[in-house]
Order: sequence, then C-alpha cells, then structure tokens
Amino acid sequence: MIILKLGGSIITEKGAESPVVNHENMNRIANEIKEAHVKDLIIVHGAGSFGHPFASQYQIGKPLKGELDIHEKKIGFSLIQSWVKKLNGIVCDSLREHGIPAVSIQPSSFIVTRNKRIETANLDLIKDYLDNGFVPVIYGDVVLDRDESIKMAVLSGDQIINYLSKHLIPKRVVLGTDVDGVYTKNPKKHSDARLIEKVTSLSELESLDSTTNIDVTGGMIGKLQELLELASLGIESEIINAGKNNLIENSLKGNKVLGTLITMKESS
Amino acid sequence: MIILKLGGSIITEKGAESPVVNHENMNRIANEIKEAHVKDLIIVHGAGSFGHPFASQYQIGKPLKGELDIHEKKIGFSLIQSWVKKLNGIVCDSLREHGIPAVSIQPSSFIVTRNKRIETANLDLIKDYLDNGFVPVIYGDVVLDRDESIKMAVLSGDQIINYLSKHLIPKRVVLGTDVDGVYTKNPKKHSDARLIEKVTSLSELESLDSTTNIDVTGGMIGKLQELLELASLGIESEIINAGKNNLIENSLKGNKVLGTLITMKESS
Repeated sequence: MIILKLGGSIITEKGAESPVVNHENMNRIANEIKEAHVKDLIIVHGAGSFGHPFASQYQIGKPLKGELDIHEKKIGFSLIQSWVKKLNGIVCDSLREHGIPAVSIQPSSFIVTRNKRIETANLDLIKDYLDNGFVPVIYGDVVLDRDESIKMAVLSGDQIINYLSKHLIPKRVVLGTDVDGVYTKNPKKHSDARLIEKVTSLSELESLDSTTNIDVTGGMIGKLQELLELASLGIESEIINAGKNNLIENSLKGNKVLGTLITMKESS
Repeated sequence: MIILKLGGSIITEKGAESPVVNHENMNRIANEIKEAHVKDLIIVHGAGSFGHPFASQYQIGKPLKGELDIHEKKIGFSLIQSWVKKLNGIVCDSLREHGIPAVSIQPSSFIVTRNKRIETANLDLIKDYLDNGFVPVIYGDVVLDRDESIKMAVLSGDQIINYLSKHLIPKRVVLGTDVDGVYTKNPKKHSDARLIEKVTSLSELESLDSTTNIDVTGGMIGKLQELLELASLGIESEIINAGKNNLIENSLKGNKVLGTLITMKESS
C-alpha cells in the first residue's frame, strides 16, 4: 500500500483570497496516478485556499470565549466543513474521470481529536474500501475535539498521514508539495539554498541557517514532525514536487525522483 | 430530540433527468426549521434527482456479474457518492445561511450494510455533535455491503431514519414529503382518494384499493415498513407535506398538522 499526499498548495491556488482549484495540476496529477497503476493506494489531500483562510478567520482550535464565540465557531466549522468537502468532491471527480474508483472519506464523520490530536478513528472501513479495489480519498477537515476549552479543531492532512501510516503500515508514503523538498534556506530568497536529500531528525534542521524555508510551505516543521515520528517506526516518506511533470507518477512507480527522504536509516 | 426527514422529492426536482435542486423549497424549509427552534434536531434527507437516476443506471445493489461489472459499479458508486454529497452540501449551506450550525455526516464514511441493511454504524459522533449544539445532517448514500454477491448498496434516508431512531430514541420523527400523507388511492388520479390519518399495520393498507398511491412517492411501502417497525418500539412518526408552507415549522413546534400518523397506539 502507498499513501499519497496531495498538498493543498498543489491542488488549489493557496495564496488566493477565496477558494480556487488548480485544475491544471489536478488533472495532470489524476492522469499520473492513473498511469502509475498502484494496487493499493490511499490519497490524502490538504485544504489549501478552501480551508486555511476560513480556519484562520474563525480561529477554530483556539480557546473558546463564551457562548457567542462558540456559536460563531460552530458556524465557521460548518462553513469550513462545507468548503473542504467541495474540494474533496472536485478531487474525487477528477480521479474518477480518469477511471479511478475514488471514494470520499469525510474525517468529520468518524474522527474525533483531543487537544488537536486524533483520539478516535475507526479505519476498518478504509481497509474495506481498499480490499474492494477503491481508492479512498481523505482530507484535511474540521473535527470535534474532546478538549472542552476548544471543542473543535482543524485536522491537517499531515496528521491524517501520520495516523493512517501508524495504523495501516504502508510500504511507502509520498508527499506531493509545491517545492522540491526540504531546503537549507528559502530557495525563493537565497540562491545558495541547497536541497536536503535526507532528514533523520529535527535537530539537524535546527542547526541550519535560521532563515530556511522550513515553515513557508504550509508548515514544513509540522509536516516533518509527523514524518519523523513515522520514520522512527520504520516508515520512510518522501517529499517531492508535485508541481513538476511526472514526479508523482515516477515516484508511485517506485523510481527514485528528486526530493527529500525522511528516514531513520543512515544508509538508505 | 426530533428526527426530521426531508424527502428527495421536496428538496430536488425528482422527475428531472439530471440533478436539480428545488431552491425555493429548500430555502423556505431552512427558514421554517430555524423558526421552530428545536433544541436537539437531526436532519435526514433523501437523494431525489441527485441519486435515483444514477443508482438505477449503475444497478447498485443488484448482483455483480464479473470483474467488468464490478469496475463499472465502483465508478457508479463514486459518481453517486459525489452527487449526493453535493446535494448534502447545498442542504447544509442553506441551513447555515439561516443561522443553523449544520454539520454534514457522510454515511459512506462510517456505515456498512449486509444484504442492504445497516450492519455497522457508530452513532457516538452524532451524539457528540448534538451535545455540542450542532444539527447533524445525514443523507441517503451508497455504502459498502458485506454481501459478496453485491458488495455495494444504496442506503435510503428511510433506513437511516429507522436505524437512528432505534438507537437514539427520538421524542418524535417527522417525515416531510411531497404529499399530505398516505392515501387510500392515488390522489392525483382518483378524486375520491382519502387521506389516512393513522396507520397501525401494513395489512390494513393491503386491504385498500390496489391502485393506491402507496408506491409512487419514492417507495411509500418501504417507508411505511421502516416506520411501522419504529411504531412497534413505541416511536411514533408523522408523514406530512413539506411542500406546503409552515407544516414543517408547526410540526416541529409540536402542533398537530395535516398528515398521517404511524403508531401502534389505537387511541393516540
């Protein structure tokens, strides 16, 4: 089984003020996934401009400040859930139009967090869909949180990747982002930025130039924390550029492509 | 707690060849629900023209005939799931625009059937949403079926009503349809058709004129079977006309409105 992440910055116009899909990327990537013919595949996608602006506007996951704030956050929860569901529909439609039997899996229908980490999530149904030859497509969403001080939380696609991987033990985890991988510095600002081929710990990144781009692509530090935890369990992952042609396809086929490997193995 | 069903024939143009929402009805009903101020409310809606034409085209729930048929049905499953999800998004958006914190609950993310009847469905999350003041909105969908000869099934809103009611024991169940209730004959064809105020068993309907409209409104017999099972458990339900102004609102407020009561109590 392979778990493939499609970053929100790849399938949406992440900088956009309102939700805009990047149909060109989505269509190309759906075709690459089809061409890769992966037997067991789970796709996880981010929310991009369909989620982040609203999550920040409604401050979901921040401490509640009385009844009025709770009501407003619930309306925000409903709004965000609706937008990310729309994006998920577009992703599933695109995959299906390429002949892939994509099935939508809505996190807020079966996942609950406590203090923003997944507490309950029955994955049996996802396994059943895989066993029946479907491609489950799950995504960053809003969910109920059992911490009474927040009650609601944003569940990132990266945390979903972490949870699914720990419980389903995929052969590989591939993260399609809008950059080539993890850099020593922000490559958009520094011409001497260097791509890091392998990350084995966060500390090794902290020792790098503090002006790195570690945090500009929608939380690279958060992403790496999730992935390093997997690496410690022996599950390797690769961060690659899904914005470039054929990288997703080649990676899914098992070919080595440009990117950053997150692993605990010194020699891999 | 009240469970309210919005029939597919009310919120969509059910006869339409392609999916069309009845925005006028949806908007009016959302407003009536808001005005009724129900403390604990679960809404279940049908699929109407967003589901039935595709379910029939792809023969979901019919015995599988080999690999090619399975692949085609999976594509159909994906397509139907996508369309009914779109309808659910429109329903939730309309409710939210009226100030109701609607939360979408996707059956195919947590429900599995066996031989077309719900086998597994954890309702804890729905209870959690209610406890937090949300209005869960669940709907007719396609789901995995554990019967190997069909593998996939259509899950009707009426079966969901039945299952939710048996497990959550609502105070009342209200079904908003496009007719005034159950008639002795098809009222669109027979001027002497008479509305039945109370149904206590299917046999009492079978003794009626065989040209009744019992089956024309998207399976009235199926609906009644689900509701009579509830009645035998002491849970009464009412079939009312959601196409007429204020009936939903008045019924939710606990007022007696025109319709058919399904009960085992002779005197209620």
